[in-house]
Amino acid sequence: MSTDFHNRSFSLLSEQLVSKGMDVESLISKIAKFQIAVPSWALGAGGTRFGRFSIGGEPRNLEEKLEDIGLLAKITKRTDAVSLHIPWDIPQDAEAVKQKASSLGIGFDAMNSNTFQDYGQTLSYKMGSLSNADSLVRAQAVEHNLQVIEIGKSLGSKGLTVWLADGSNFPGQANFRNSLQWTTDSLKEIYAGLPSDWKLLLEYKPYEPNFYHTVIPDWGTSALICHQLGDQAKVLVDLGHHLPNTNIEQIVATLMHLDLLAGFHFNDSKYGDDDLSTGSIKPYQLFLIFCELIGGSSDGAQAWDSISWMIDASHNVKDPIEDLIQALEAISQAYAKALLVDRKKLSQCQIEGDVVGAQEVLQEAFLTDVRALVREARIQSGGEADPLAFYRREKIREKLIAKRGKNAQASGL
Amino acid sequence: MSTDFHNRSFSLLSEQLVSKGMDVESLISKIAKFQIAVPSWALGAGGTRFGRFSIGGEPRNLEEKLEDIGLLAKITKRTDAVSLHIPWDIPQDAEAVKQKASSLGIGFDAMNSNTFQDYGQTLSYKMGSLSNADSLVRAQAVEHNLQVIEIGKSLGSKGLTVWLADGSNFPGQANFRNSLQWTTDSLKEIYAGLPSDWKLLLEYKPYEPNFYHTVIPDWGTSALICHQLGDQAKVLVDLGHHLPNTNIEQIVATLMHLDLLAGFHFNDSKYGDDDLSTGSIKPYQLFLIFCELIGGSSDGAQAWDSISWMIDASHNVKDPIEDLIQALEAISQAYAKALLVDRKKLSQCQIEGDVVGAQEVLQEAFLTDVRALVREARIQSGGEADPLAFYRREKIREKLIAKRGKNAQASGL
Amino acid sequence: MSTDFHNRSFSLLSEQLVSKGMDVESLISKIAKFQIAVPSWALGAGGTRFGRFSIGGEPRNLEEKLEDIGLLAKITKRTDAVSLHIPWDIPQDAEAVKQKASSLGIGFDAMNSNTFQDYGQTLSYKMGSLSNADSLVRAQAVEHNLQVIEIGKSLGSKGLTVWLADGSNFPGQANFRNSLQWTTDSLKEIYAGLPSDWKLLLEYKPYEPNFYHTVIPDWGTSALICHQLGDQAKVLVDLGHHLPNTNIEQIVATLMHLDLLAGFHFNDSKYGDDDLSTGSIKPYQLFLIFCELIGGSSDGAQAWDSISWMIDASHNVKDPIEDLIQALEAISQAYAKALLVDRKKLSQCQIEGDVVGAQEVLQEAFLTDVRALVREARIQSGGEADPLAFYRREKIREKLIAKRGKNAQASGL
Amino acid sequence: MSTDFHNRSFSLLSEQLVSKGMDVESLISKIAKFQIAVPSWALGAGGTRFGRFSIGGEPRNLEEKLEDIGLLAKITKRTDAVSLHIPWDIPQDAEAVKQKASSLGIGFDAMNSNTFQDYGQTLSYKMGSLSNADSLVRAQAVEHNLQVIEIGKSLGSKGLTVWLADGSNFPGQANFRNSLQWTTDSLKEIYAGLPSDWKLLLEYKPYEPNFYHTVIPDWGTSALICHQLGDQAKVLVDLGHHLPNTNIEQIVATLMHLDLLAGFHFNDSKYGDDDLSTGSIKPYQLFLIFCELIGGSSDGAQAWDSISWMIDASHNVKDPIEDLIQALEAISQAYAKALLVDRKKLSQCQIEGDVVGAQEVLQEAFLTDVRALVREARIQSGGEADPLAFYRREKIREKLIAKRGKNAQASGL
Repeated sequence: MSTDFHNRSFSLLSEQLVSKGMDVESLISKIAKFQIAVPSWALGAGGTRFGRFSIGGEPRNLEEKLEDIGLLAKITKRTDAVSLHIPWDIPQDAEAVKQKASSLGIGFDAMNSNTFQDYGQTLSYKMGSLSNADSLVRAQAVEHNLQVIEIGKSLGSKGLTVWLADGSNFPGQANFRNSLQWTTDSLKEIYAGLPSDWKLLLEYKPYEPNFYHTVIPDWGTSALICHQLGDQAKVLVDLGHHLPNTNIEQIVATLMHLDLLAGFHFNDSKYGDDDLSTGSIKPYQLFLIFCELIGGSSDGAQAWDSISWMIDASHNVKDPIEDLIQALEAISQAYAKALLVDRKKLSQCQIEGDVVGAQEVLQEAFLTDVRALVREARIQSGGEADPLAFYRREKIREKLIAKRGKNAQASGL
Repeated sequence: MSTDFHNRSFSLLSEQLVSKGMDVESLISKIAKFQIAVPSWALGAGGTRFGRFSIGGEPRNLEEKLEDIGLLAKITKRTDAVSLHIPWDIPQDAEAVKQKASSLGIGFDAMNSNTFQDYGQTLSYKMGSLSNADSLVRAQAVEHNLQVIEIGKSLGSKGLTVWLADGSNFPGQANFRNSLQWTTDSLKEIYAGLPSDWKLLLEYKPYEPNFYHTVIPDWGTSALICHQLGDQAKVLVDLGHHLPNTNIEQIVATLMHLDLLAGFHFNDSKYGDDDLSTGSIKPYQLFLIFCELIGGSSDGAQAWDSISWMIDASHNVKDPIEDLIQALEAISQAYAKALLVDRKKLSQCQIEGDVVGAQEVLQEAFLTDVRALVREARIQSGGEADPLAFYRREKIREKLIAKRGKNAQASGL
Repeated sequence: MSTDFHNRSFSLLSEQLVSKGMDVESLISKIAKFQIAVPSWALGAGGTRFGRFSIGGEPRNLEEKLEDIGLLAKITKRTDAVSLHIPWDIPQDAEAVKQKASSLGIGFDAMNSNTFQDYGQTLSYKMGSLSNADSLVRAQAVEHNLQVIEIGKSLGSKGLTVWLADGSNFPGQANFRNSLQWTTDSLKEIYAGLPSDWKLLLEYKPYEPNFYHTVIPDWGTSALICHQLGDQAKVLVDLGHHLPNTNIEQIVATLMHLDLLAGFHFNDSKYGDDDLSTGSIKPYQLFLIFCELIGGSSDGAQAWDSISWMIDASHNVKDPIEDLIQALEAISQAYAKALLVDRKKLSQCQIEGDVVGAQEVLQEAFLTDVRALVREARIQSGGEADPLAFYRREKIREKLIAKRGKNAQASGL
Repeated sequence: MSTDFHNRSFSLLSEQLVSKGMDVESLISKIAKFQIAVPSWALGAGGTRFGRFSIGGEPRNLEEKLEDIGLLAKITKRTDAVSLHIPWDIPQDAEAVKQKASSLGIGFDAMNSNTFQDYGQTLSYKMGSLSNADSLVRAQAVEHNLQVIEIGKSLGSKGLTVWLADGSNFPGQANFRNSLQWTTDSLKEIYAGLPSDWKLLLEYKPYEPNFYHTVIPDWGTSALICHQLGDQAKVLVDLGHHLPNTNIEQIVATLMHLDLLAGFHFNDSKYGDDDLSTGSIKPYQLFLIFCELIGGSSDGAQAWDSISWMIDASHNVKDPIEDLIQALEAISQAYAKALLVDRKKLSQCQIEGDVVGAQEVLQEAFLTDVRALVREARIQSGGEADPLAFYRREKIREKLIAKRGKNAQASGL
């Protein structure tokens, strides 16, 4: 990618956009401002129940995780926050961690609690946590979430993400209604401990790790609970948490219509919660989701700034940092393309029942090669023109292995 | 099936049930009281977009439809109402129709409106009805529903079922949020015309006849709208209207938890909205749904009598009357088996985390052969011991063909 | 789209491609040569079992269908053949039809038989055709296919496409093994009547119009039967005929590996056999399929020219001609993008286990805006720069309605 | 369950069966003879990528695994073999293991190789094993399989099960055709080392642990490879290894039609490869599969004795031994019910197109409560009347925990 070629590509694209009445400076500004958080568990190799293959040089502690994200921030200019997981990332010295992060340009996105595993706590979560039939287990799980809030407060986080694995594997195992009620009641206790400037992001997922029923299986259940909690509770959409063929972009639109969209866990999937790199399987779906986001915010349904953005993928066969670079680029492109949609013309087609025309409007934006635009925004922000090439050229993984060792393993799944 | 064998089977089953502390008389009474409506469009052959194969002797008008349902009522004692579809079943003389129905022991279940086809109305529903971008089309569709209510009032119906095909086939065709808002607004106008002792049953369906998005795709959207309409609006569950692998019994439980379950359209499916005979593909799922229904009502979540029951299948390769006999039997068996569940023991297993025990409790009920119990209930009610054998022995289809002709075709899909 | 802008876009794209070592002339030549057949049933409005909405001006006979395709050929330069359906398109005067077609630049692609409907033939196909338990029905269905071959011979067709709806709606209805054997035996009789320069294209489909089992549900069954028939029998892939989440591009690769790929029925889908416009839902999947086609042919697995290409969609809410223009463009783009894949680099990444690099290679091609390339190929061939704009500008639908009438209905589904 | 009640239940059931012309002694004999292998990895708690919850008292070595299966054999009389996994179960002293197994009435079913994990072997399987682009990795994986055969020979096994996780997570990662060819070639080398009285059981699976493509995704690919290997290679069906809505019973019928069915891995699932207890989710599907098995063998398509039977489930929330007891009972019941199908009447209905009648025939068998029959077979074989009650009454888990410890963990996933 020569500078000259970038310049000419960007120039032609600019001309094309300007001829359609678009403000290229404004586009660049929007793209440049768009920042996506990275979870602390995304820096190591992921795996499946069948095993895990090491990549080498994985961060051995929270500081090293921050360093990896700092690198991502520096070269991509597309991320400026980490999302921590407790107990995997309990900071020993919150102030020091904050300073370290700050020096790397990293803030603290939503905190993640964990009540789906046994990691030494008193009572087991085998039969559920916030939905457990045993009130003592529920109390323990509530208390854990309150502690996570405390940790988050010490770091400057403003959100608590609750992903609940609770559910059952067999008909009869759980009482659906009791589980739902207990979960709601437990969440009310957690919500009561939420600072007034925090958000509670409530995730849904149809299955896995439970394979018959999950207490919060769909957006409807999550929205229902949020309604009972209060305005600070909203629904988190993880792109992989849907049954086959679900129209996710419609769910996004509906949640915005209700002012109930908390934000996203970005990834991609072909079969289930595959946690593949965002944009690697269904890029058009990702674009359509961003079309709804832009539409919903520009129409005033829900403010753009009220939405949280995070990547949540599992890096089973890729270098996690490279994977994240690809994901950040794919998300940026989807956003940039969605910004190009001629919404006035689209609206006109919808009113006139011009289905063919409406498709043309969307395709016009999607087919446009926006890489020069995204690159220009990155360059103007001080990032690398080609972050992936930079990462490889600088042999960063090799350096990380040299420093951290071949067998370093990051905490996480 | 000899009477002697029935008696001995029933006797052994009774003994077995009594030994478990059950009240057989009460079981029989519950089964006998359970009545499932039949839609007027179910008496003719169904088809697909690829064609339709006649069966002969189909009812040529509303009176003949009533006669077919009257026969079903007489021999099965499991149905006592018809659900009409407008404009397919507009009665010329409501009083006469009511008397005819009454003489056959048939009442009028929920009315069904139709805004998914063009049948001569002024404006086309091609681009939607209650969600149409054109307010005139919306007004027309609202007016049609209000007329259906009027017709229903003249017949003694107490419900309006709204199944909305509205949606889109391609990204961009519709504005998700506008469609949802217009639909909600239109439904509010319809709801305003609903008599105070009526129920509005709001159906959901993920796809077909629209294949990209449907305005009311899932229970969550339907529940959301019902909340905005008022207490008389509730969510109708059609068993075939779900994405692959959906846990339908959980949805039923959730809706009862919210006192939002309107009732059912019974059928079965393997791939989509296949409209196969209830119980022919997934009988265990049907049983689990009835377990939730009994659990939800006995726990006081929602009253049993507040729920509507209807069959909605497409009879593509079976004689519709025979198909309905099979469906009524399958539903009765699922209900009877669910009644046998030892709910106290189940609850105990759930509290103790005894997953194996909970499964045993459900299987104990499901594996029990309840045919003698269902048969006994039918016999005591004055029905036929074996309705299907009766129907064939009496050569009823042959008689219908002789009377109505080989090529008579019922109105409907 | 100004000529100047096209020229500069094409010029920059050319420069970009040349800098990567590509031969732009060769690319244009390949794209220009690529021709996709249109089925005769695609010129009218499609529908679902719930109804059909007319579009007006539909072709009233075979001649008018040819005229519509002739128009498509003229403006898009991407189609040069029609695929006829018998009995919907029985030509009264084959020679006249041939001449008419020839004058429009249209040839005759594979013939389609119909044994899934009753249209006046002696025995009903309700319980199946080539798989029917009744040998007389099987013989009738075989005979129909042989007649279709005869008609095709008179027109210059070189292929017979067999899509078999045969199957069952309920467990027990059919004997799987007998159905399969009878189907195979029937196909052997048809194959025996196939001219030596013809191809038999055997389609598979998992469900619809049968909803429990289909005799040829997947590529494996189709391939198995083809093996038993002989070298002229190959497997036809309709993109909508797969279970949820199927990796279709892998099936294409496998069939090419076996030299068993007959060709395609192009369309797109979100839920089932939705028959939406190709490329409207999953454009990346379409691209990946073309990557396999180019890979398989360039590696010598199966010759490119041995593959048949056809669109098979249902135009429920779009003007069919506009829909076909969009589909032809989407297919052309997918092909053009796949041609840009750096296969040598891709292969190197695969050998080195460079998963990130392999994804980059594919994305590099997919993200390129190839519209100028496809347009240039069309212009060079004498087509319209923007066929859709031309169609609208010339008010062709209005003219067709004026000529053929508002309520003209094309034969077909 | 009193002996008296069992006797009377069995007596009434016998009378019922005899009245239909069935030979009860023969039924009991068939049920009694039916034996299902248990895999060595099924005796410990299973888990997901999100974690694993211990059950306590898990077998610490191969000998203890054999003891658990020996107990199952003794009380259920429905299992008489173990299926070992290498490297998890490498016997130190094959002769001693054989004697131990023999003393418990346990033989050695098919051996399982493992090329989906890294467990200290020289080259990593991260990028595949038998399909790896690197010939050295392929050679290593072939060699491993040959070693597994050697171990199996020393124990008296007669089969090698190959489950291949090979595939890719992202488009571009693998070359589909090369992967398939390399896999086939590798399997040919393994097949060459297969003793002449052994069977090679080749499994298929659509996804997991790879989430874009799997080299052997479906029965068609497996069958294709088996055809190339030779008569000793056949297709293994794991009930959880299918895309949503797959008609598995049809696949079973097709494989028998081809004399290509190796056998089964029994489990149940709602969403994917959930590995739930067999019969806990879709008992009717299990029954329909057994109907095909009985039909296919009685019609001479493939001999009953040529089929291998094994349970393969993951015991995440149940005591594994209790889970296996439930699974063995569910399989026995499905088999017993399928034996009751009046195949002559079914065949007659199929010939006459009596769809309703065919369904009645299957339901007549399925609805019959066969527990007394299965129990009688078990009692006559010397097993426990109620194995689960026995297991709990005898406090066997408590004893195992006392002996093996609370935190003993079996090798496996």
